[in-house]
Amino acid sequence: VADRRRLDEFGIIATYFRPLAKGYSGALDLTDDAALIEPAAGQVMVATTDTLVAGVHYLVGEAPDVVARRLLRVNLSDLAAMGAKPTAYLLSLTLPEDVDESWFESFCEGLRADQAAFGISLAGGNMAATPGPAVLTVTAFGETPKGQALLRSGAKPGDAVMVSGTVGDGALGLRALQGTLAGVGAESRAFLASRYRRPEPRLALGMALRGIARSAIDISDGLVADLGHICETSGVAAEIDWPSVPLSDAARQALAADPALRAAVLGGGDDYELLVSVPEIALAAAAAAADSCNVALTRIGRIERGKGVRVLDGQGREIPVAVSGYQHF
Amino acid sequence: VADRRRLDEFGIIATYFRPLAKGYSGALDLTDDAALIEPAAGQVMVATTDTLVAGVHYLVGEAPDVVARRLLRVNLSDLAAMGAKPTAYLLSLTLPEDVDESWFESFCEGLRADQAAFGISLAGGNMAATPGPAVLTVTAFGETPKGQALLRSGAKPGDAVMVSGTVGDGALGLRALQGTLAGVGAESRAFLASRYRRPEPRLALGMALRGIARSAIDISDGLVADLGHICETSGVAAEIDWPSVPLSDAARQALAADPALRAAVLGGGDDYELLVSVPEIALAAAAAAADSCNVALTRIGRIERGKGVRVLDGQGREIPVAVSGYQHF
Repeated sequence: VADRRRLDEFGIIATYFRPLAKGYSGALDLTDDAALIEPAAGQVMVATTDTLVAGVHYLVGEAPDVVARRLLRVNLSDLAAMGAKPTAYLLSLTLPEDVDESWFESFCEGLRADQAAFGISLAGGNMAATPGPAVLTVTAFGETPKGQALLRSGAKPGDAVMVSGTVGDGALGLRALQGTLAGVGAESRAFLASRYRRPEPRLALGMALRGIARSAIDISDGLVADLGHICETSGVAAEIDWPSVPLSDAARQALAADPALRAAVLGGGDDYELLVSVPEIALAAAAAAADSCNVALTRIGRIERGKGVRVLDGQGREIPVAVSGYQHF
Repeated sequence: VADRRRLDEFGIIATYFRPLAKGYSGALDLTDDAALIEPAAGQVMVATTDTLVAGVHYLVGEAPDVVARRLLRVNLSDLAAMGAKPTAYLLSLTLPEDVDESWFESFCEGLRADQAAFGISLAGGNMAATPGPAVLTVTAFGETPKGQALLRSGAKPGDAVMVSGTVGDGALGLRALQGTLAGVGAESRAFLASRYRRPEPRLALGMALRGIARSAIDISDGLVADLGHICETSGVAAEIDWPSVPLSDAARQALAADPALRAAVLGGGDDYELLVSVPEIALAAAAAAADSCNVALTRIGRIERGKGVRVLDGQGREIPVAVSGYQHF
């Protein structure tokens, strides 16, 4: 803690946060009581909020810039699941007193990198002190054309269930970071850890699937739990064919070493892939949309009449899955 | 803790939070990844976020419904300072594991009461667990006609400095709750405590002062600190005439018993009154606006050229004031 220079909050904001708001006139240079957010003509604003707590949602000791990017990305993933284009965000930092300036320096460097990557800007926020662990909240804003937001509620029997990227890397990556993932090489462990630490919000895919997907969600609670959310909201059931679930090479390696990890792949969370339902007639359009975004979109099951989510093995037998996961609202 | 029934988060949301979102179609029944927020035609959206930490921003043991209303009101006060009409809010609750259902019952009853009072609706949010104290964040949304938001940056030399209601009750009320306010009767202590616990966001006044006030802020950091924010943002100085600062009878009683409390009145915060600058030509309009809202609006000083805020006593001598206060951005 050689770097224990202490700026006051005004200094921190002026030095580290104000530059992050330069590109957004509605941020009012972070000098006012609130931000002005104006969707473009014909667009609806989409707003979501998500929180990371030190020691609960990220490992204590994680680099602040990595935490910052993860905080932004879990929020942007919610916008992706709505088919929204992100525009700006508010940041609410509740921090222990002993956070030093180097923390802000690194944290804001992470924000800066992802603002550039995703074309967004800081628009406002709040800082407060806590005797407890850091609680970091982002409220992210995006836009969709009126009536074109992707919702959880549109799934219909007969729809194909599709998922982007690969599933389970987030849950396995957390285990890799915790040192509890056995039988997996160093390179694969590093890959899985990076998937946990730096999720990839599927923003381009979400936008490309407007008018194509009938329902959408991002996988934060886990594949089965999140498909369950679609089913409950849409009043339908779903089946997943386990053999068709897309896995990374690293995840395959982990599963080969410990088949019981299948529960983590199906029931863990933190993948931040898009899970969508697509009517048969739109499957070609969905494939083209995924191609245009250079993202894999794999058919893993189907929407049916009824309630609940069933996972079937290669012989059509049901695989029992324990579902947990935090609930967002 | 007889009432230690535990619903899971889904149950809590369905039972307590979903009813609070019924009136707002963009909340999507709290079943989706994000909320849809659509300002009316010609309106700009105004967004602000503020956090209360248990034991830091409210006393541990405070009734949950009181905390909920205070949480909403400190955010609505920021919208009032922008001249915005509030519409909806997101709620981010980071809670210790031992919060029981009766907490949610009371907390949501507080939200319900103030949703009705202010014509707003819950639109979405997030719940997370923490090993630390509760961290409660609201992001509030409002609307103003394009170009009519009240900003901190418009003050000009010659403007009158005006404040709504009475000043210092918040800081004195906190002392009353902490049992450190001597020489004040029980009724006055109760009045001051209620001013701290249930601030009154001056929403109607903020809207009525559109096109009249040149600059505006709400008093959360303290009269002198917040006038300092206006001065810094507007590039001006200000003088306050201490004898003209409006005080409640209870505050007068406290000051009579302990004149040193003047520092708390000038430098404390939590009043959530509006502090505005008004050009001479608009003073009659400002008075009419305040009358129409049935709120006192008192002239307490003037904007001048230069930097900083000076407080003058009845003889024109400067009163030294220590300024602190949390910084919001």
